[in-house]
Amino acid sequence: MSLNEIVDVITKSQSIVIATHIFPDGDALGSQLGLGEILKSLGKKVCLYSEEPASHLLDFMPGCAQLVTTLPETSQFDCGIALDCGDELRLGMIREKICTIDPFVTIDHHSGHKDFGTLRWVDANLSSTGEMICELAKALGAELNYNAAYCLYTAIVSDTGSFKYASTSAQTLKLAGELIAQGVKPAEVAGKIFDNYSKNRLQLLQHVLATLKLYGDDQIAMISVTENMFELTGTSALDTEMFINYPRSLGTVKVAAFLKEADEDTIRVSLRSKGKYDVAKIARKYQGGGHRNAAGLKLADMTIDDARKLLMKELLPLVEES
Amino acid sequence: MSLNEIVDVITKSQSIVIATHIFPDGDALGSQLGLGEILKSLGKKVCLYSEEPASHLLDFMPGCAQLVTTLPETSQFDCGIALDCGDELRLGMIREKICTIDPFVTIDHHSGHKDFGTLRWVDANLSSTGEMICELAKALGAELNYNAAYCLYTAIVSDTGSFKYASTSAQTLKLAGELIAQGVKPAEVAGKIFDNYSKNRLQLLQHVLATLKLYGDDQIAMISVTENMFELTGTSALDTEMFINYPRSLGTVKVAAFLKEADEDTIRVSLRSKGKYDVAKIARKYQGGGHRNAAGLKLADMTIDDARKLLMKELLPLVEES
Repeated sequence: MSLNEIVDVITKSQSIVIATHIFPDGDALGSQLGLGEILKSLGKKVCLYSEEPASHLLDFMPGCAQLVTTLPETSQFDCGIALDCGDELRLGMIREKICTIDPFVTIDHHSGHKDFGTLRWVDANLSSTGEMICELAKALGAELNYNAAYCLYTAIVSDTGSFKYASTSAQTLKLAGELIAQGVKPAEVAGKIFDNYSKNRLQLLQHVLATLKLYGDDQIAMISVTENMFELTGTSALDTEMFINYPRSLGTVKVAAFLKEADEDTIRVSLRSKGKYDVAKIARKYQGGGHRNAAGLKLADMTIDDARKLLMKELLPLVEES
Repeated sequence: MSLNEIVDVITKSQSIVIATHIFPDGDALGSQLGLGEILKSLGKKVCLYSEEPASHLLDFMPGCAQLVTTLPETSQFDCGIALDCGDELRLGMIREKICTIDPFVTIDHHSGHKDFGTLRWVDANLSSTGEMICELAKALGAELNYNAAYCLYTAIVSDTGSFKYASTSAQTLKLAGELIAQGVKPAEVAGKIFDNYSKNRLQLLQHVLATLKLYGDDQIAMISVTENMFELTGTSALDTEMFINYPRSLGTVKVAAFLKEADEDTIRVSLRSKGKYDVAKIARKYQGGGHRNAAGLKLADMTIDDARKLLMKELLPLVEES
């Protein structure tokens, strides 16, 4: 595909619907809201579809109130755009409707993206869909207003862990600088994304860190969380987001596992690895999935101790292969 | 002062000594090593002075082996440069020697900088001394090599918390993008700065998190570390780097304090704040220093409990002012 074709299609369209994946993260929602602002500034009629209202962790972004959770039966669109969605199944309930629109544009940066749409721009080398929308805005000759810049900056920061991930390029930083030049305050956005801990969540972190166990010459780290810890601290599984980064942050660790007690004797496992160690391979063996360095799986009828032993049998050979 | 005068002085000098503050952090050391590379590329004879070898948390930066911990008695310099040092007392043992050199250039971004040196470039609006060295390199017409770019990128990332702090500007991101364009890998640098935990350090973090106390409608957070915790976990004060970010990350918190038992009944205090809350003001009152959102001070002849009470008296009015 060429970016120019997408510019052509957008230029010719008057009424455009923009969707993203279900349970949108910062990049998905920020790109959607940002592109919405850009298209409106070009005089387009824009519909921003989301299966659910924005989560309380992301609704600080300007424009969330514009999201619609149902499409009018009679709605007609000249063009549909799916953002940050690697698989059309992840579009949720709008899928059937949006897939009938022609042209149907997909803009995405997921590796392992499963092609869909009539016009596709997929580049797994780019840091974020937010970065792609910045490029698209330039190609459209659109000026970014403050709200668009705020949402796109949030998108980029979310998907790069504040410019820490390997996908961060010279262009990523340059574009981010241009967004800041529109008046966006980096500390404000970072505060909204990263400094949203509750006191209870910090207490939960203490409990979880106390479970740290290391194996295989400290190359494998495991932490765990129990229902009891949630009760003690008044927290839930949602509060464990990012905790896996602590065992992963140990200098010696190649693979980190986070074991979570879920309903009905099931243990949910998050796996993270560094560099060449492929944890998706192990996840798939147990009907899980993910990427090489970030994967997940579920283990039924097990205690945390059972799950730990099973994982040891899988992970030790992985780190010893090298 | 004008940057041009500093360029003039450097251009005319052949032998240059560069110093920074004692216990250098990432910005101090990265700026020193980066400027060293730049001046060498211009054919200068450069001496990089440090009172102690680089800490094990920072010695990943290329060029640390060039640091000298003593100056030859006979050494003669055409120019001395002090980087990232807000107070000449913090130069340590080289102070007497370097203060006799004329010109003696200071380049610093600390608010509350106490003027010293014969030629000064002090700008508290800039994110880091690393950013200033990038500007200086441009003014000197110097090309940055990979090692210089690596050290300066590390400096900027260290002092902005990976572009999260309020001092991050459009220019900061633009310059960082230019450094990345020299081949520096953001994930590698972020990994070295942020993912360098040892198992013992993670255990220390557990102990420290358990000390969390909140005051003033949860707007003030304090954590502390004792000599006993260091003994129990086989760690030292160096391992507490960045721990202050945990209390700071609480959504309600405006000001965070980290109280550390140091030698001889002294409590060292790190302060962090968000937005308008100026903790440097409080630090200066107790002969400490720093920036509006990040400052430090020492309290002699006190226990942690004494220090906590004293700080409460200072911090409560600060958050209640608003």
